Amino acid sequence: MELFDVLVLGGGPGGYLCAERAAQSGLKAAVFEKKALGGTCLNEGCIPTKTLLNSSKMYRHAKESEAFGVTSEGVKYDHAKVIERKDKVVKTLVSGVGATMKANKVTVISANGVIKGRGDNGFIIEADGQSYEGKRLVIASGSETVVPPVPGLKEGLESGFVVTNREVLDEKTLPKDLVVIGGGVIGLEMAYYFASVGTNVTVIEMMPKIAGATDAEICKVLTDAFEKRGMVFKLSCKVLEVKKDSVIYEENGEKKEIKCDKVLLSAGRKPSTANIGIETLGLDMDRAAIKTDRHLCTNVSGVYAIGDCNGKLMLAHTAYREAEVAVNHMTGKTDEMRYDVIPSVIYTDPEVASVGLSKEAAEERGMTVKEVKLPMSYAGRYLAETEGGKGFIKLIVDTDKKRLVGCHMVGSYASEIIMTATMMIDTELTPSRLQKLVFPHPTVVEIIREAIFHI
Amino acid sequence: MELFDVLVLGGGPGGYLCAERAAQSGLKAAVFEKKALGGTCLNEGCIPTKTLLNSSKMYRHAKESEAFGVTSEGVKYDHAKVIERKDKVVKTLVSGVGATMKANKVTVISANGVIKGRGDNGFIIEADGQSYEGKRLVIASGSETVVPPVPGLKEGLESGFVVTNREVLDEKTLPKDLVVIGGGVIGLEMAYYFASVGTNVTVIEMMPKIAGATDAEICKVLTDAFEKRGMVFKLSCKVLEVKKDSVIYEENGEKKEIKCDKVLLSAGRKPSTANIGIETLGLDMDRAAIKTDRHLCTNVSGVYAIGDCNGKLMLAHTAYREAEVAVNHMTGKTDEMRYDVIPSVIYTDPEVASVGLSKEAAEERGMTVKEVKLPMSYAGRYLAETEGGKGFIKLIVDTDKKRLVGCHMVGSYASEIIMTATMMIDTELTPSRLQKLVFPHPTVVEIIREAIFHI
Repeated sequence: MELFDVLVLGGGPGGYLCAERAAQSGLKAAVFEKKALGGTCLNEGCIPTKTLLNSSKMYRHAKESEAFGVTSEGVKYDHAKVIERKDKVVKTLVSGVGATMKANKVTVISANGVIKGRGDNGFIIEADGQSYEGKRLVIASGSETVVPPVPGLKEGLESGFVVTNREVLDEKTLPKDLVVIGGGVIGLEMAYYFASVGTNVTVIEMMPKIAGATDAEICKVLTDAFEKRGMVFKLSCKVLEVKKDSVIYEENGEKKEIKCDKVLLSAGRKPSTANIGIETLGLDMDRAAIKTDRHLCTNVSGVYAIGDCNGKLMLAHTAYREAEVAVNHMTGKTDEMRYDVIPSVIYTDPEVASVGLSKEAAEERGMTVKEVKLPMSYAGRYLAETEGGKGFIKLIVDTDKKRLVGCHMVGSYASEIIMTATMMIDTELTPSRLQKLVFPHPTVVEIIREAIFHI
Repeated sequence: MELFDVLVLGGGPGGYLCAERAAQSGLKAAVFEKKALGGTCLNEGCIPTKTLLNSSKMYRHAKESEAFGVTSEGVKYDHAKVIERKDKVVKTLVSGVGATMKANKVTVISANGVIKGRGDNGFIIEADGQSYEGKRLVIASGSETVVPPVPGLKEGLESGFVVTNREVLDEKTLPKDLVVIGGGVIGLEMAYYFASVGTNVTVIEMMPKIAGATDAEICKVLTDAFEKRGMVFKLSCKVLEVKKDSVIYEENGEKKEIKCDKVLLSAGRKPSTANIGIETLGLDMDRAAIKTDRHLCTNVSGVYAIGDCNGKLMLAHTAYREAEVAVNHMTGKTDEMRYDVIPSVIYTDPEVASVGLSKEAAEERGMTVKEVKLPMSYAGRYLAETEGGKGFIKLIVDTDKKRLVGCHMVGSYASEIIMTATMMIDTELTPSRLQKLVFPHPTVVEIIREAIFHI
């Protein structure tokens, strides 16, 4: 039986990067992946949706640029071609990951790995009838769509009337009427995509607002923009049943029905930790999530859990960083995970990006807080490129410690410029120090500079 | 005669911000502007060009998105409407500056101010027959287009056959054949704009490459992209004469003629320091530029020179920062100007952004340098949104001091993400510290993270 320094169970962003970094640190590493390298993010999540959303953006630009002096006729959207292109993009990136594994001499086992407990030298994974032993074990088994116990949902999934983030990305035809169950980030991005390219979209959400923990004022801007695009939101509504061609839900105590030809189930995700043999290890769990400390160690020495399976923050870039922290722990480098400076993005139009604490969260931690809110139109480029945009930025400042603790934005380029705010929070520089940075003009990122002078 | 703490001559980005910051620091400030507040940048430069370039981007998206699944017929571009929208954007921003001046109790003198030398309490400016005295004087008189001594050029400017960055922005009709004299950044942006919307564009440049000091490999990518769009480059060519409907130039010792209906003169800018009375002060000059130190002080105590008129780096955001450094000097706050961490951008497609030193410049300073170059397609979002993109990033690292000293990029979002690199260089954090930052995925800014792991 071959002995590795590290066995990594799962080849998603956390898993493949963990194996890569381990190998770069001189450790002999193997990664087990039953489907495709890249995991949910690359194959069924972030990358495919961004490919689709980019095409829908081009479609909107072609159709809706009259205010910018551009008119077109007969603008057509070829969804099947977009899906084809998406497949090509995903394929390129998956082979890229494979090539990186090869270049770093990581052993890739393309099979379903199951943990078989401890061996003489560490931990054992069995895959395709073969056993592998690792001095250390990293569980990076990802997450899966939650299927709530709603009558008819299971049958709908079987018949194909109901789809998840996975199947929806392979549908070659656009639904005419789509119901999205769940108004969280993933549901919203897909809902927005379909609404952009001509589908009638209704989003049913149990909470009184969309986009989960996103700042309420930002959600207001988003909801308005989405409604302008024809999207219908059924908030504080509960799905009661999925029928053959409709969804039954409760609104203000009343039972209602909405006809549709497709349902997208997007009611959250949970750690994928069943059927992978973790019961052989005696790991501390929090429901389906594997408990970890700030080094990504579990309660069992030598076993780490990174990415969605630890249930902390289900974001690919959280998994990236966790992978690196875990490897640094293995190799004795000082490092630890900080969960409070991780940016998050919603890739709709307008874009939303956020990092750090909300005002409420900062106050709960006992901080004396100042909030600075500015319209994005203070940035010349935003005004030059946007008609009637309602974008804004909100900075949350700890006035005692004189530092930025949160930044929340809605507007163009938010996804790309949030990194500047992320660095500001992470480095804990004072506002007076930050004021000395030179921002390029004219850019939208300048709104951060402007806001810092308003602290 | 009213006595001010600060008189600011010129209401461009440097001037108006200087007056604003001075007022915010409790100083009584006046700003003199003979044309419109906002100066060249806002009225005839950065903002108008970005408005135009944004419209041309929409036009390209409408016409050229077949690979993304979007097709259109009869795409039309209404240049006159775009100019009208540009005027609206400029007007909004100019009134915004006016409102800011008012809110900060800055006195705005809308007249041509001329320095009249020293008074009893400081320095005197005369405008519209009235005299104003200031304890301090800030010269922010900007820059102007260089008109080289080429036969026929002056006459062309008078007849309207030749235009500068100013007049070109008011032309309501698109030229059919445009010759751009000068392949620097300003010339290129306008050349690219016109080429994008259907004009035949020829750029004549004396140097063997375009875009001035921009990295040579980036220029190659740019040139290729521009030539694909039909732009013709006459490099190492000298303009000999401007005729009534043509331009005569020398190529490889041969005299050639190119017919056109419009010429854009963009052969550089020089400080605007004539006819404003600086001779009354005895300032040290470097040709037309006023010499300043790192506090923006001139050789005359109490007199500062900020923005283009000091000839350092003719960029609006340099002027912003210089304005702040000058005010900090007035109010006794520790601060000084750093000219080596100022980003610059070319807003074409692809975009170019750069900050810090080139490899050559770093080596000239005696640094031991490592260069990391990565294709932007390493970033998943770039691949998702781009077809056949040739974008890349180049990091310049001082390996002894273990810090980033330069970053040069070509590709989408470069303008907005260069700020992340700017902060990295400015804060002088080590690569191993930078590796601990969490970048949002999938974004193009992640290419910086990727490159840092390749150091």
